Amino acid sequence: MSEGKVSMCEKKNDCEEEQSVADPDTRYPDGTVKLRNPHIELMDQDILYHIALGSESHDLVEMFGDVKFVCMGGTPNRMKNFAHFIMEEIGYKLPTGTDLMDISQYSYRYSMYKVGPVIAVSHGMGVPSIGILLHEMIKLMYHAKAQDPVFIRIGTCGGLGLEPGTVVISDQAVDGLGNYSYSVPILGEVVKRPAKLDKKIVRELKALSSVDDPYETVVGTTMCAEDFYEGQGRIDGAFCDYTEVDKQNYLEKLVKQGVKNIEMEATPFAALTHHAGIKAAIVCVTLLNRLKGDQ
Amino acid sequence: MSEGKVSMCEKKNDCEEEQSVADPDTRYPDGTVKLRNPHIELMDQDILYHIALGSESHDLVEMFGDVKFVCMGGTPNRMKNFAHFIMEEIGYKLPTGTDLMDISQYSYRYSMYKVGPVIAVSHGMGVPSIGILLHEMIKLMYHAKAQDPVFIRIGTCGGLGLEPGTVVISDQAVDGLGNYSYSVPILGEVVKRPAKLDKKIVRELKALSSVDDPYETVVGTTMCAEDFYEGQGRIDGAFCDYTEVDKQNYLEKLVKQGVKNIEMEATPFAALTHHAGIKAAIVCVTLLNRLKGDQ
Repeated sequence: MSEGKVSMCEKKNDCEEEQSVADPDTRYPDGTVKLRNPHIELMDQDILYHIALGSESHDLVEMFGDVKFVCMGGTPNRMKNFAHFIMEEIGYKLPTGTDLMDISQYSYRYSMYKVGPVIAVSHGMGVPSIGILLHEMIKLMYHAKAQDPVFIRIGTCGGLGLEPGTVVISDQAVDGLGNYSYSVPILGEVVKRPAKLDKKIVRELKALSSVDDPYETVVGTTMCAEDFYEGQGRIDGAFCDYTEVDKQNYLEKLVKQGVKNIEMEATPFAALTHHAGIKAAIVCVTLLNRLKGDQ
Repeated sequence: MSEGKVSMCEKKNDCEEEQSVADPDTRYPDGTVKLRNPHIELMDQDILYHIALGSESHDLVEMFGDVKFVCMGGTPNRMKNFAHFIMEEIGYKLPTGTDLMDISQYSYRYSMYKVGPVIAVSHGMGVPSIGILLHEMIKLMYHAKAQDPVFIRIGTCGGLGLEPGTVVISDQAVDGLGNYSYSVPILGEVVKRPAKLDKKIVRELKALSSVDDPYETVVGTTMCAEDFYEGQGRIDGAFCDYTEVDKQNYLEKLVKQGVKNIEMEATPFAALTHHAGIKAAIVCVTLLNRLKGDQ
């Protein structure tokens, strides 16, 4: 960040996140997405293999130029249901005799639906699976010339000291070793990118909750685990070398660090969207209180 | 390994892999799977959440006690096709009016088919996704009292210096940092488990290939990447900070190390099956020669 930018917003504590979307490295003046990869614009075509789309085979501007929100969740089934829910919410009407279709059905990898300005797409489970999708969705937004798209992950998770059904809005993501970043080996060396989320969207989403809601909504740190069993301190995996006491001590340590929930995609989601200058948020519902059990 | 075991097989260079299945930590005397987790047998029930089965809700011995082979591949579609292929190959007849069903359809996570002694199950993409499945399939084999099951991953990959369509049988797996192991944070500390495969099965599978095959079959090291784009040295991701020359140098370095192909699940597959004393193999077909391109 240049000194000029710092001085412009020194009175805002969330300066960096709010300024990042205007970064000339990641945006053209009209708000369309610029890629941090000089090779793409030199390619004759760019095949987005895992979502079954391509920059030559499809008119991506016509198909996706109007996208404002890219919503991601784990399973194809959930994202199909979510697309229908959004259709009701925004009063989007389909022509008679039509229904939503899975745009990426022939990828056999992810399922994608589109309802007006909203994409609903499944990301599978775990860091690499959502990582592949993020690369291709960021490139899709670039090819489509979509303006300032917002990415939102809606997921399930284990809660820490929260009633099952609690909604957790992530304000930052941490990995299983305490790094607030996404680490990935690139050409044999570990590259770390900060796992930052947009503070303004966190506030806006939190403001949507009401005291009348039949569930609680909290804001906090989300831990991204690389494994569901041992990686989350569960004692019900195929292997377990630690005791119930070791597990409880570990989970209590996470609670003291401000961790509210554990899932498996937060660090790449936060880091890759941040690196692309894309505003992003993670909203998860807790399925259980991990301080009381594993299943 | 005890000294006795070493002396018994000191003339075999593949002693460890062939002896490991008889390890009393991982096998009962009748060959059924023993878990390296003392907590499971104390649980009233064990819910195998991601494959929609449970030790109380289902008669797992009746359903899966006869399983000999657990075949895993990326997509639900591929494993459905594979199950039908196996049905033809082994002449397995279904009762009139029946068809194969997706046993795990209500998990919305993985798809599982069973044809006599063969399970065909999808594992999704990436290390955590196959890791979850491996924990649950190992526990399923334990609950089912299956005897000496063999796990085989059948996948697609990028080849290094091989014609597209080449079949690669993995003799070992290496991660993106050169470790011949699967590293995962457990209770905040990195645990490394050796990513070893069964040498006898490698020889048996290689012996099935023929000079008349319209494709080549090779044996070699498989690299397991944590990412499809930057993690595999591709220049067509949403981000790329290196040049085509950097990429070629990296891929050539891998070739010199004996790496034949790159995929995204080999280290946990090899390490978790090895830790469970389960004989396992990885057989992948190359979709492209990465020395000549990325798409």
